[in-house]
Amino acid sequence: MIPVKTIEWIGDADGVCRIIDQTLLPGQLKYLDIADVEAMWEAIRTLRVRGAPAIGIAAAFGVYLGLRSAAPPADRFLAELERITSYLATSRPTAVNLFWALERVSGLARATFSLEGLAVAISDVLAEANAMIGEDNDVGKAIGAYGAALLADGDSILTHCNAGGLATAQWGTALAVVYVAAGQGKRISVYADETRPLLQGARLTAWELKQAGIPVTLITDSMAATVMAQGRVRAVLVGTDRVAANGDFANKIGTLGVAVLAHEFGIPFYVAAPISSIDPCIASGAAIPIEERGADEVSLGFGRRTAPEGVAVYNPAFDVTPARYVTAFITEKGLVHPPFPEGLKRLLG
Amino acid sequence: MIPVKTIEWIGDADGVCRIIDQTLLPGQLKYLDIADVEAMWEAIRTLRVRGAPAIGIAAAFGVYLGLRSAAPPADRFLAELERITSYLATSRPTAVNLFWALERVSGLARATFSLEGLAVAISDVLAEANAMIGEDNDVGKAIGAYGAALLADGDSILTHCNAGGLATAQWGTALAVVYVAAGQGKRISVYADETRPLLQGARLTAWELKQAGIPVTLITDSMAATVMAQGRVRAVLVGTDRVAANGDFANKIGTLGVAVLAHEFGIPFYVAAPISSIDPCIASGAAIPIEERGADEVSLGFGRRTAPEGVAVYNPAFDVTPARYVTAFITEKGLVHPPFPEGLKRLLG
Repeated sequence: MIPVKTIEWIGDADGVCRIIDQTLLPGQLKYLDIADVEAMWEAIRTLRVRGAPAIGIAAAFGVYLGLRSAAPPADRFLAELERITSYLATSRPTAVNLFWALERVSGLARATFSLEGLAVAISDVLAEANAMIGEDNDVGKAIGAYGAALLADGDSILTHCNAGGLATAQWGTALAVVYVAAGQGKRISVYADETRPLLQGARLTAWELKQAGIPVTLITDSMAATVMAQGRVRAVLVGTDRVAANGDFANKIGTLGVAVLAHEFGIPFYVAAPISSIDPCIASGAAIPIEERGADEVSLGFGRRTAPEGVAVYNPAFDVTPARYVTAFITEKGLVHPPFPEGLKRLLG
Repeated sequence: MIPVKTIEWIGDADGVCRIIDQTLLPGQLKYLDIADVEAMWEAIRTLRVRGAPAIGIAAAFGVYLGLRSAAPPADRFLAELERITSYLATSRPTAVNLFWALERVSGLARATFSLEGLAVAISDVLAEANAMIGEDNDVGKAIGAYGAALLADGDSILTHCNAGGLATAQWGTALAVVYVAAGQGKRISVYADETRPLLQGARLTAWELKQAGIPVTLITDSMAATVMAQGRVRAVLVGTDRVAANGDFANKIGTLGVAVLAHEFGIPFYVAAPISSIDPCIASGAAIPIEERGADEVSLGFGRRTAPEGVAVYNPAFDVTPARYVTAFITEKGLVHPPFPEGLKRLLG
């Protein structure tokens, strides 16, 4: 039932990383074969591949692609590795999975290099990136199972942006809950916020749910309050790009508003959070860096000017939702309820 | 400083009603000369002219255009009048000003007809519609003056949709407050929600504020929570299409969400409400009919498909905000504070 393979490796050591070019959805399902690190940086930067878990995997493959083409001599290996990971780290600033994945594969590469030399270190990076896909699928299924227990037959949920298969290797995080619940025979329907400015809800969430046969109703972000006030929503499920130690979390712009509304209307608000998205080094949401993007995404976002020429635009790509609006985090190791500082610490412990 | 004449009559009894075709903004400032009632119905229906006060005035001119071309014999006059007003009443269901204006000019026409005959009755409708423009300007300036007293030099406000000059004959309601305050020398800046699906904030509010020299920053609807959480907004100012006797009010979809957010973040939430938008016959917001519009406004709203073919869409054009989220109504007779049932009743006294 899971409709997509968002990212995978095709071939052997000379192969390519194949991604769905998500900027072309829903009009066109086109795969892109990425063969060098610059193309991977561009794919992450321009959101051809997006979603915190998928970005992490993409970055890991990116490190391999960079090492493969750099063909560094042994005495330059560590410097090259550092250059490549630093470069990939500049592609998106908010998702912690990016840094987590870069640290993971470069740490492994450094260790292997010192023990077994250059060739093994490079091939280990590819093996590790591939392993991350398998782990990501396991994480999605586990989050799905823990979350599905929260949903009953006939429930309708609301989601924002795309925390689906298209945000991970295959299963998604928030939408994994829907997929697993549906697999258990529960009839679950979804309200999808379109998620301006880049319309990940309209373009991606509506598309993948439709592919999977899950009933989905598209609304504009401004309609979330009304569907909640009308009692159409039993729970809100969203993903996250980074969770601070106190339970504040960053996610796609608009999540904060949805969280406040759910709180006001007495609707449970769940955050599907792979453990890799939890950043114990960040004390609170105030310290999470928020990416600002260009004005054209708002004023010229559909190939058509929708605002007067030269108008000022504020375009933060993410917002931070305080922990007090979160009912629970759904992780691959189970639910985390308040108080979050203790619960998250225990989870990571 | 007021940048536009949204609607006016050009010429004598054989003249035309000239409106700005707001569907072409901000790309093109084009005037449309409307000479028959069918064209006026279409202009209201397709939002070439929109905003509760402007719709009322447009409908009044529409009655005149209908009577002029129907050239009814005296014994058919009342039936024709009834047919024309009933027809125009079907153009938009939510704005009470439409019905208020139709009742006003048809009541006048019936009275004049019985006293002075057909020709005078018809010409009186035109005179009345023209008088409504003058009154509308007076209302805007009065609302502006009462509202401006709430703002201080340096304040930044947030608004949703367009309750500006483009929603009225010239001055606007919520934006009249900004224009009058700016005219008093206060430096006021505005955050404009783009207001999906039809982007009245991006297309119209940003355009008219820019024309008027008021600093304006465009955001997507999903960013309102963030600008409030960051302390960038001192007050929210919106318009309304209909106020119930208890203070619940209907306005463009998304207003409810903004109101809940303002409440949560402790930001005053003001509703600019001409007395003509107050409907004492409606006890509460639950009884306000809410127009639902087509799916394409959401899924194909920019001349480009932004959601998968055939996806279900829920597209209410308005929402109802409970009175408890309103700090005060700003009317042309002054502010109305809670408790609203008493305050609104006294106002209509």
